[in-house]
Amino acid sequence: MISEKMSEMISGSSMIRAMFEEGKKLGAVYGPENVCDFSLGNPNLPPPPAVRKAIISVLDENEETFVHGYMNNSGYEAVRAAIANSINAKFGTDFTEKNIVMSVGAAGGLNVILKSIINPGDEVLVFAPFFGEYKNYASNFDASLVVVPPNAPSFQPNLIEFEKLLSPKTKAVIVNTPNNPTGVVYSEETIIELTDILKKKQEEFGTEIYLVSDEPYRELVYDSETKVPYLTKYYDSTLVGYSYSKSLSLPGERIGYIVIPDKAADSENLLAAANIATRILGYVNAPSINQLMVAKCLEEKADISFYKKNRDVLVEGLSKIGFDCAKPQGAFYLWMKAPIDDDKAFCEMAKKHLLLLVPGSAFGCPGYVRIVYCVAHETILKSLPKFESLYHDIHADRN
Amino acid sequence: MISEKMSEMISGSSMIRAMFEEGKKLGAVYGPENVCDFSLGNPNLPPPPAVRKAIISVLDENEETFVHGYMNNSGYEAVRAAIANSINAKFGTDFTEKNIVMSVGAAGGLNVILKSIINPGDEVLVFAPFFGEYKNYASNFDASLVVVPPNAPSFQPNLIEFEKLLSPKTKAVIVNTPNNPTGVVYSEETIIELTDILKKKQEEFGTEIYLVSDEPYRELVYDSETKVPYLTKYYDSTLVGYSYSKSLSLPGERIGYIVIPDKAADSENLLAAANIATRILGYVNAPSINQLMVAKCLEEKADISFYKKNRDVLVEGLSKIGFDCAKPQGAFYLWMKAPIDDDKAFCEMAKKHLLLLVPGSAFGCPGYVRIVYCVAHETILKSLPKFESLYHDIHADRN
Repeated sequence: MISEKMSEMISGSSMIRAMFEEGKKLGAVYGPENVCDFSLGNPNLPPPPAVRKAIISVLDENEETFVHGYMNNSGYEAVRAAIANSINAKFGTDFTEKNIVMSVGAAGGLNVILKSIINPGDEVLVFAPFFGEYKNYASNFDASLVVVPPNAPSFQPNLIEFEKLLSPKTKAVIVNTPNNPTGVVYSEETIIELTDILKKKQEEFGTEIYLVSDEPYRELVYDSETKVPYLTKYYDSTLVGYSYSKSLSLPGERIGYIVIPDKAADSENLLAAANIATRILGYVNAPSINQLMVAKCLEEKADISFYKKNRDVLVEGLSKIGFDCAKPQGAFYLWMKAPIDDDKAFCEMAKKHLLLLVPGSAFGCPGYVRIVYCVAHETILKSLPKFESLYHDIHADRN
Repeated sequence: MISEKMSEMISGSSMIRAMFEEGKKLGAVYGPENVCDFSLGNPNLPPPPAVRKAIISVLDENEETFVHGYMNNSGYEAVRAAIANSINAKFGTDFTEKNIVMSVGAAGGLNVILKSIINPGDEVLVFAPFFGEYKNYASNFDASLVVVPPNAPSFQPNLIEFEKLLSPKTKAVIVNTPNNPTGVVYSEETIIELTDILKKKQEEFGTEIYLVSDEPYRELVYDSETKVPYLTKYYDSTLVGYSYSKSLSLPGERIGYIVIPDKAADSENLLAAANIATRILGYVNAPSINQLMVAKCLEEKADISFYKKNRDVLVEGLSKIGFDCAKPQGAFYLWMKAPIDDDKAFCEMAKKHLLLLVPGSAFGCPGYVRIVYCVAHETILKSLPKFESLYHDIHADRN
């Protein structure tokens, strides 16, 4: 009785969720304290104290009909203006409230963007490894997902294959930097090369291709020398989907925004379309109290030194054991080569050591695994002996 | 560059929104205090005081990582259980948290429901006059909207035409009672007859047809003798989309829920599908703080005596002038016969008297207009002399 698309999805249901459920089961048998669950990107940091203060002052300073009422579907103008100013100050852009559409997180934002631009059969390019939900977002609008193969070991986008895969049907290219699942930040050099290819191909095809920048992890960068280029400065038709879920550690609140620059192709219509898409997809508008709250926290950030400590201990520990992993520059994901070819089999072995990892196959990149390190520091410490015995098991198997 | 679907929507953009923009323009010329804007269903009541208290106590009583964090995509279990219990107490049903999926308002809920059940080409039936967004929601999933013609003057559903229009392709029937735009509550007799037809036709076709109950106005009923039947009790495959936007007067917050009864066809898969649809449509989950807040306000309601007073003064005033309108039983819409055949022309004439009304054509029912009475009481009082001169203008034209 349910729709065919949903039937397929239920039967092939998300590996990550399945892992999460399995973790609960293992916890019930062995005690949750003995299971190291590295499967779900659920920030475990509290939001900065400014969030609570902001909610209280939003309630104190405004009429309730304003705080909880309808506004323009794109969001409160003052909130959008404050966000535009904050982006401008950080990146030297020149946006106004007109360029900002508030969204129900980045997931909502990406859906609004795709609803606004995709005709059935259009192609959406992503770079493996990629966040599995892109496939579902593209499918929502009957676009074909075209996957650019991975570029190991740097996991910068594979631009040679990218150029070959662009076609007159390409309507959008999604980039996600800092990246889920690799933690890699695309370098400025990469961005320049990537956008040069886009410009060239666009001209060759006589089409417009939108670059969609999925930015839930923009603020999660650990070393001062790592810069995350602001993509609208490199390519006119860049559309940004931002989320406060990780930067303010409030993923349940569903609050983010879209940027549609004036320079983007068909910008006026795009803004009108995004305003309507927000409405008719059923979001209507981003939750009002959360819009007003984030406007008071634009320069705030969860204390990510905690993630950094996890990252450093984990990378050092795993490398010492003998695993092959590079230090992630951003997000809270560690991307590790599976020591056997079959990443799914490796995750099954890890499970026997009460380690829950997600196979790279879930991200279109077999042979690797994703380890989420937004967990308690003790979990990291507790996991290392488990990783060590896992490593030895594999070694023993090989001999 | 934007999608074809969105292009059409922009050019034919919502009459209601256009009216709203026009109101702003008229206000700028004549002074906003002189324009009586009856076009937008934006509740002007404050939420009950319990809402503010609930937000504060949610913040006081819980860890911040809980208040603002991810939960199961269907929503917090305790919130869903509390809602199930509250529905059971009111309507004698037997739902548990398993039957409840939290949603981003009723609009989000309806999209999740349709995403879960619709295959392209399926038919979705609605009863004219109907909320125009249903057309867009159906189009999101490539369903055809089939409109059952209106049944004047009662505006109970036209069941004779309904029976004729049901087909083997019918996948869903949307009902909305209390109704936007008519304010009519479907009687129990109507519901019994309607669901009997559904049962009969389902059997005849060998298909399953879902009855989708859109319930943003359930609590907005003015007279104690008016009962709004709970539809799951009359038809097994009833799916409910509820919203707190109007009952708690917080339309900007985007909070509501879906009910999927165990008795609904393919219920297990539907629940799984709704959980996934919530995620992949980009809502992910209903805003977390708002879930926790409404759970503390389940027996609360905005003070709708205010709407009742508006309704009574307006109906009496308009009838005295000579307009033809029935007293609405619920919601905050008054549905009035246009005194000339052309409802759009009548709205244009009304505009000259600084009265903003929405033509019935926007709801698939020409010859009528919708007057939204969730406005300041002075607006009602101020409008009556304007309606009077409008009436005389029309009369003068006729002589």
